Amino acid sequence: MKIAIWGYGNLGRGVERALAQNPDMETVGVFTRRAPETVKTLTGIPVYSATELAGFQQKIDVLIICGGSATDLPEFTPNLARYYNVVDSFDTHAGIPTHFEKTDAAAKESGHVALISAGWDPGLFSIARVLGDAILPDGETYTFWGPGVSQGHSDAIRRIPGVKDARQYTLPIEGAKELLRRGERPENKAYKLHRRECFVVAEEGADKAEIETAIKTMPNYFADYETTVHFIGEEELLREHGGLPHGGSVIRTGITGEGRTERAELTLALDSNPEFTGAVLVACARAVGRMAARGDKGCKTVLDLAPADLSPLSPEELRSRFL
Amino acid sequence: MKIAIWGYGNLGRGVERALAQNPDMETVGVFTRRAPETVKTLTGIPVYSATELAGFQQKIDVLIICGGSATDLPEFTPNLARYYNVVDSFDTHAGIPTHFEKTDAAAKESGHVALISAGWDPGLFSIARVLGDAILPDGETYTFWGPGVSQGHSDAIRRIPGVKDARQYTLPIEGAKELLRRGERPENKAYKLHRRECFVVAEEGADKAEIETAIKTMPNYFADYETTVHFIGEEELLREHGGLPHGGSVIRTGITGEGRTERAELTLALDSNPEFTGAVLVACARAVGRMAARGDKGCKTVLDLAPADLSPLSPEELRSRFL
Repeated sequence: MKIAIWGYGNLGRGVERALAQNPDMETVGVFTRRAPETVKTLTGIPVYSATELAGFQQKIDVLIICGGSATDLPEFTPNLARYYNVVDSFDTHAGIPTHFEKTDAAAKESGHVALISAGWDPGLFSIARVLGDAILPDGETYTFWGPGVSQGHSDAIRRIPGVKDARQYTLPIEGAKELLRRGERPENKAYKLHRRECFVVAEEGADKAEIETAIKTMPNYFADYETTVHFIGEEELLREHGGLPHGGSVIRTGITGEGRTERAELTLALDSNPEFTGAVLVACARAVGRMAARGDKGCKTVLDLAPADLSPLSPEELRSRFL
Repeated sequence: MKIAIWGYGNLGRGVERALAQNPDMETVGVFTRRAPETVKTLTGIPVYSATELAGFQQKIDVLIICGGSATDLPEFTPNLARYYNVVDSFDTHAGIPTHFEKTDAAAKESGHVALISAGWDPGLFSIARVLGDAILPDGETYTFWGPGVSQGHSDAIRRIPGVKDARQYTLPIEGAKELLRRGERPENKAYKLHRRECFVVAEEGADKAEIETAIKTMPNYFADYETTVHFIGEEELLREHGGLPHGGSVIRTGITGEGRTERAELTLALDSNPEFTGAVLVACARAVGRMAARGDKGCKTVLDLAPADLSPLSPEELRSRFL
């Protein structure tokens, strides 16, 4: 299966690394909006200008679009679905219905398969939520994020005057998980299930107390949460907080029959958020290529994928090795 | 969707309870090989003789077959797939290829959908193993069972002369899980990952030391495992060990990109193994009914099911609520 990468940031590099681990995949190359000669790939795969993409229609089975959800994907996923089978990781929850409809119209008209919102959340966590709800209808689902770096929250801190750089960790409140594991149901609000820890490099002469207040009172992002702020030096930030670990848990607790409690828990612990997300996108691209080869078309999500389609192994091998 | 239950043991009762929790399902009744008047159902659904089943072909969308894997399912699943869409929980790993082929031939010939080996293992755990292997190809998958009652091992103890009754608990070795959570890979052998705890009621005058030796040296079942044997009274066994809790974990640990470790872990903690398994079978029956309505046919496993098909909610609702 011939796979190409559109966009070459952290996620694009994660996809490149994942493709190198899958011998049934051939990497066509990276398509970038930057000057191609300025981009050096990790594994030496070729770099093309995004404007050259039109010449590759017969050479790409699935195009993995590695762009931002704010502006890139709403524009490029529907547009590229006119010409290619595509996969994206669109993760703005409220925008999913519109993104789905636009992409579905484009993919159906052109006869392609477009998978949106793949990754781990949305993605694997969405699968866990749907299965939990379907199997234990009398229950409740909790999503915990972290321990991990939240890029959106780190960016929000960086926009505060006097802040030079920052890294924000989202941490699950372990006590809430413990309650669930004892069969209880804690209050299911994000700010009751998480706390936030911020590592901030202040500009010289900046008022640290003011920065700390600005962080702790920022609505939606921090105001409702237990938030800790640490001021550190720039070198320490780069040295100790340079990685992008993440993860979390989806926990479904439910009651069957005569009041018996059943619990299902999916936990991810990721040293590299973009590399794991890239690995999910690559497995999803395999499923997209297969669905397209079977004549399927239109917009899909991970909720429409059969697990067997993500694997390079045959159905017979899967049944004998993993069932 | 109209669902019927074939067989009325612990699992059949679990299915009955689960059907009562799903308002989109209508329960046709239980079909039993016993005299119907001797069977009293938990929720008052009707009981029919298995011989009456032929008259219900137009009245059943999916038949859930709740029989044993040793002799019932290999015979009845292929036979019943000639007349009905069916779901079973066949769990004899080595027999799956043959069971699949026989059921597939019958279902394809008659135009039905037959889902075999549904439940949690095989079932949800199989999905976790396939996804883990597909997403993290450079990795290893560990399956831990328990803490829970193993019926097969309890039966094996009961067959020892001098044993009146017994209950065997399979327990994961927590130290092995801890190693995985620290990024290490313990030896991946069932007897290195589990220990066994046995509660035994001896017959009067039986030689307890002999029974203990017979248990601890039983090949395959106990000989390789760390095994503890407790002799207790019959009343205590019924009082303290009457439930059928179970569960376990599938843990995939893998390496992405430049040696970063990623871990995915699905854990189930079930107060009632048969009620949870019944709940899975009911959600799978929904998917089978939908696949059949779309004109699909043949034998399937959970690896062929799209998560959305297990849920009573519409694709739009699923995307907006759970994606």
